[in-house]
Amino acid sequence: MVRIGSRVPTARWQRSFETPARRGSQPIENMAVYTEVSDGELATFLEAYDIGRATSFKGIAEGVENSNYLLLTDRGPYILTLYEKRVAPADLPFFLGLIEHLAARGVPCPTPIHERDGTVLRELCGRPAAITSFLTGVWPRRPAPYHCSALGAALAQMHLAGQSYDKTRVNALSVAGWRTIYERCADRADEVAPGLAAELGEELADLERRWPSELPAGVIHADLFPDNVFFQERTLSGLIDFYFACNDFFAYDLAVCLNAWCFEADVSFNVTKARVMIAAYRKVRACSTAEIEALPLLARGVAIRFLLTRLYDWLNRVDGALVKPKDPLEYLKKLRFHRGLGGPGAYGIDNA
Amino acid sequence: MVRIGSRVPTARWQRSFETPARRGSQPIENMAVYTEVSDGELATFLEAYDIGRATSFKGIAEGVENSNYLLLTDRGPYILTLYEKRVAPADLPFFLGLIEHLAARGVPCPTPIHERDGTVLRELCGRPAAITSFLTGVWPRRPAPYHCSALGAALAQMHLAGQSYDKTRVNALSVAGWRTIYERCADRADEVAPGLAAELGEELADLERRWPSELPAGVIHADLFPDNVFFQERTLSGLIDFYFACNDFFAYDLAVCLNAWCFEADVSFNVTKARVMIAAYRKVRACSTAEIEALPLLARGVAIRFLLTRLYDWLNRVDGALVKPKDPLEYLKKLRFHRGLGGPGAYGIDNA
Repeated sequence: MVRIGSRVPTARWQRSFETPARRGSQPIENMAVYTEVSDGELATFLEAYDIGRATSFKGIAEGVENSNYLLLTDRGPYILTLYEKRVAPADLPFFLGLIEHLAARGVPCPTPIHERDGTVLRELCGRPAAITSFLTGVWPRRPAPYHCSALGAALAQMHLAGQSYDKTRVNALSVAGWRTIYERCADRADEVAPGLAAELGEELADLERRWPSELPAGVIHADLFPDNVFFQERTLSGLIDFYFACNDFFAYDLAVCLNAWCFEADVSFNVTKARVMIAAYRKVRACSTAEIEALPLLARGVAIRFLLTRLYDWLNRVDGALVKPKDPLEYLKKLRFHRGLGGPGAYGIDNA
Repeated sequence: MVRIGSRVPTARWQRSFETPARRGSQPIENMAVYTEVSDGELATFLEAYDIGRATSFKGIAEGVENSNYLLLTDRGPYILTLYEKRVAPADLPFFLGLIEHLAARGVPCPTPIHERDGTVLRELCGRPAAITSFLTGVWPRRPAPYHCSALGAALAQMHLAGQSYDKTRVNALSVAGWRTIYERCADRADEVAPGLAAELGEELADLERRWPSELPAGVIHADLFPDNVFFQERTLSGLIDFYFACNDFFAYDLAVCLNAWCFEADVSFNVTKARVMIAAYRKVRACSTAEIEALPLLARGVAIRFLLTRLYDWLNRVDGALVKPKDPLEYLKKLRFHRGLGGPGAYGIDNA
């Protein structure tokens, strides 16, 4: 902190003088908006839709690394997304088709808005872009058991509704993809924790050997963290951010949610949350014994998936980058938890 | 960019694997939201107001370095602001009282929403916080003459409406404050441009010597850049971000707008924009000859004010900081432009 003479108030000096990246017309770089859309470009873009005229247009912090804008028109609120490098353009028809399919079947997710000529995927500022419906609700910063219960039911509903979806997409971040990331990290993994490379190597080999090949599968979300789930009061009002969606075991998706929703901030496992989540899931979609038995292994897989991608980001972080990588070790603790279990009973599952 | 084996799609590797700071409940650090408000804290906070229940709550990129949220309730949209370190808490009653005063007199600016007990300034997540009304419109990324004309009229309207406001605030970033900043930068200024320290030193001495003491004064905005002005179609629909507002010469505010609106991206001066801006201003509030004559000097002052704060930020930037400082040299070019003028006629002013 800078100390300075009395003529200029100290408060002005505690951060920088000018707001980051707000002068001129450069892209906004200090938030989750990577492309700035001008008022003129927006007006032209909206002419192709039948959703009225823009009354407001604000960049928001939401979603993966795309640029998301909350667009208000005289007809109501919408979300406009510009897809940045992170999402492969070839995958966009899968994602947009999926949410349209799911929304039409009652899953509370955004649905793409069609242009007058029927198109849902267009181009804006040189990027693929789409407008989707707006979902009310707020994501739970501190998930409670009732959130986990509602989530379990919605996840199962999504799995059932997705069974009639005709496009498919490989899960590049499942077991077949982990070794590639591991090999990119192994020689420096011990910088993060001594012995980490060896521990992950053994874990990975074990998971590759034991990974199931025959479990009920279909379209999964694959990234259903709390910030992708909205609640209005106590009711689940929306699932968003389907940009990791793919075809894989349904139980893998449940294992993502166990990792993302059932650990407390100190990485202790809340078995009450797991129990109600799984029970609510099974009320909507019956699970086979094999699926339940596989849960601890799948949960280890999920933990190593997030551990590896975080480790990669951590080791490859750039000084001065706007992205602050997350601590990979949170998922090492989760991995060890799942590995230490005697069976799925530890998740509070009834008659597993 | 990272090249990697074929099993993982390249697109996934072009940025980081995980969205910045979205896992867990840490503050969102990569955008203009510094404090994260939980759903529970929000619900409790809103109980004191009579504005309905939240249906959506999203961090937005707007304003100075405060945390701004677009809050939708069943009654409509609002803005919730948490004031971060940059704004001195002691100044908040001045700012909030000012926008309420101006809005009541027809200036299109946000007005604070009163709690049921009448309070407008409260605390949320340990920070001063306020809810204000929502303004429709989009700020112009590429200002055209019609924007400048509407801006001039609104600026004059604001100056007139502010004359009956009873609180005052010193402009800490006018002539009396510049030398302090200059002295903090002078020994390293030449790192940015050779000879910069000497040029600024001479300029500053000249401005201090010649700065006017007797011009019409009142409450000014002092930071009316295009991103602080909304338009709905061709109509000016809002002025925002009054967190630099203070008492100073009205013509200084006009000089801020000349600097912020009338230069093109290549720092060439668009005299058409200046002419219509000043003409529209004078239709609403008559300017004295002294004010018009002072404009080139005031515009030099404005240029050095932004140059110095940017220079300070530039020299004191922190590696890895989320804030990317703006190039100070844009304002050196503007400063030289104003210094080279023979008189206010260069701004296209009629019968000056």
